[in-house]
Amino acid sequence: MHETRFTVKGFKAAAVAAGLKKNGGLDLALIFSEQDAAAAGVFTTNKVKAAPVILSKEFLQNGTARAIIANSGNANACTGISGLDNARKTAGITAEALGVRSDEVLTASTGVIGEPLKTDLIANALPGLVDNLAEEGLYEAARAIMTTDSFPKIAISDGLADGRPYRILGIAKGAGMIMPNMATMLCFIISDIKIEPRNLKSALLASVETTFNRITVDGDTSTNDMALVLANGMAGNRSLSSMEYNDFVSGLKHVMGDLSRMIVRDGEGATKLIDIVVRGAHSQSDALIAARTVANSSLVKTAFYGQDPNWGRIAAALGRSGIVMEENKLDIWIDDIQIVAMGLGKGTGPEKDASGRMSQKEFSLTVDLNQGKYEDRMVTCDLTHEYVTINANYRT
Amino acid sequence: MHETRFTVKGFKAAAVAAGLKKNGGLDLALIFSEQDAAAAGVFTTNKVKAAPVILSKEFLQNGTARAIIANSGNANACTGISGLDNARKTAGITAEALGVRSDEVLTASTGVIGEPLKTDLIANALPGLVDNLAEEGLYEAARAIMTTDSFPKIAISDGLADGRPYRILGIAKGAGMIMPNMATMLCFIISDIKIEPRNLKSALLASVETTFNRITVDGDTSTNDMALVLANGMAGNRSLSSMEYNDFVSGLKHVMGDLSRMIVRDGEGATKLIDIVVRGAHSQSDALIAARTVANSSLVKTAFYGQDPNWGRIAAALGRSGIVMEENKLDIWIDDIQIVAMGLGKGTGPEKDASGRMSQKEFSLTVDLNQGKYEDRMVTCDLTHEYVTINANYRT
Repeated sequence: MHETRFTVKGFKAAAVAAGLKKNGGLDLALIFSEQDAAAAGVFTTNKVKAAPVILSKEFLQNGTARAIIANSGNANACTGISGLDNARKTAGITAEALGVRSDEVLTASTGVIGEPLKTDLIANALPGLVDNLAEEGLYEAARAIMTTDSFPKIAISDGLADGRPYRILGIAKGAGMIMPNMATMLCFIISDIKIEPRNLKSALLASVETTFNRITVDGDTSTNDMALVLANGMAGNRSLSSMEYNDFVSGLKHVMGDLSRMIVRDGEGATKLIDIVVRGAHSQSDALIAARTVANSSLVKTAFYGQDPNWGRIAAALGRSGIVMEENKLDIWIDDIQIVAMGLGKGTGPEKDASGRMSQKEFSLTVDLNQGKYEDRMVTCDLTHEYVTINANYRT
Repeated sequence: MHETRFTVKGFKAAAVAAGLKKNGGLDLALIFSEQDAAAAGVFTTNKVKAAPVILSKEFLQNGTARAIIANSGNANACTGISGLDNARKTAGITAEALGVRSDEVLTASTGVIGEPLKTDLIANALPGLVDNLAEEGLYEAARAIMTTDSFPKIAISDGLADGRPYRILGIAKGAGMIMPNMATMLCFIISDIKIEPRNLKSALLASVETTFNRITVDGDTSTNDMALVLANGMAGNRSLSSMEYNDFVSGLKHVMGDLSRMIVRDGEGATKLIDIVVRGAHSQSDALIAARTVANSSLVKTAFYGQDPNWGRIAAALGRSGIVMEENKLDIWIDDIQIVAMGLGKGTGPEKDASGRMSQKEFSLTVDLNQGKYEDRMVTCDLTHEYVTINANYRT
């Protein structure tokens, strides 16, 4: 992405330091659509759901929205009834400041769990936030939702519908606790395309499945995750043909794929991004289970960190995953270097070459189970000293 | 354990440095029973099974054995047909040196996966090993099976059957890759009690379930795990009454419980041992799933390391575990200090006290789900910088 102008027609954004983060950084972001936008969302599958998750789900039943108010520094999770009140209050005061209905304001939070959200700080910050709303404010909004992230995450895809150019722009935060089914991850996508809410929802679900639901950092999942998408129709296209809809889904996948890879690359302490590809699986679910088990193994992830093509750990992870497999049918590659053929190591030569590839910031691990025709993939990162440092010291 | 004499009537043991470990340490252990011993074993559930696992399972169909030959430095796993040949050869040459049948010799290996086992080194070392067999050799045997372990693990329980004193003595190795269902763990138990092979097997299964199957280090499981038990009857008791059998099971649980806790305490890089107790679960399986999910969460384990009573991570782990739960019924304690009541934090006072407890080498985390009457527990350790160091550098 070398875009200089992170803008989408009819959207404005802003960010401020409201005092929710102890370090005084940006911690409150607002995204506003000039007119009613079709809206859809997907949310954490964790049974412990943060208050903003519960509230945004409720508001999205309308299928439309005007704004997203998101804070970092406090997750407003495990906060009980008063937490939900605080989320409602946040939506309410934001709506008032913007002159829209309360149920048109979606809420999102990320940060420490179990502490009350200080809505007075949000109320104090809101006038300045609304004053600062600008077309170019999305970069600052991306910065304001960061927690242990080391860089803001923005991705863009441009398309044509009905002869009209439109844009899909997404911002996201990730870092730790990322795992399929919406782990601690916030993703806000805006577009000026005109699209029916139910089609927007379908497009979102299809895109999440191959992007955010195929990444992992540490196998934990969060109470706060959500991906929201708003489409305000200001591109001026009429209803979408099926080909145009497919193009939109491709664009959405592109944006969400970019963002999800950025999240892995920026996984807590991560130094490497690894594409795990499992093929030749006996079933589709076997392919996914195998990829997920390898991608989440602490032993495999520390070996990635150590640039050690320790395929025994990969075989052991596959062996405990519960899938259909036979050791003597296993083929394994690092990038295009085969290190295991029919369950046996190819020796120190290929392993040395593979270790060289593993010194890169990105490489792939491919497993062929030779049991069938199914394939799936996951994107993961290495497990490093820095991961431990970050997570042992997060609150203290 | 402050036993000075690690001996069991009718058993001898020895250890040598055969050259399988690169650092020249002890790497070959032999345990020998002067007469036929009832024998039983439990083995890894990983679909990728090391050659010695396959062979020992086969030999145990007899229900008796005379010896265990165990090496460290090489796992003889993922080594195909020739690996199985090497395991058979190891049993064969050991049997010949001892003057027993080949199928009376159980084999075990631990170490690097995927490299051929050098049986010539074992053959060269065997005469010296057999010469060194001594009643007091078990401590050295415990040292010889260590890999990344930092101390040898031995536990003892003494009992009475039929008026005759008997002893149960176990040695074990563990360190990384420990997880329920026999993760990289070798455990050899010997006793001079007289017991039927099928009763020995029942006693072993009952003991494993509440000990080795309730510990975790990193959630990975190994290709090589086994627990073997040999009972040679030299205590001179007649057949066991049901009360005496129960006493034996208690003794076995005591030995295996001690060993399994030593394994966690010595988990790779671990600085703390934590008892995870889940009660008030809706079902027995919910209780175990909840305990296991919390015990394996990287975020929870790094918080243990950081002495951070970060109960939000515990709630989040429970929330993704799939069990029946309601956030607002959750109670959580560190030792006897309650930090969460009905889903809400008790504030900084109790958390500060809890953090103090977490600075200890051992403490407990208790979760009451308040959903039913079922309870289960797991023993786990913290996730530390040292874990990453050990596993990033294991082979290199």
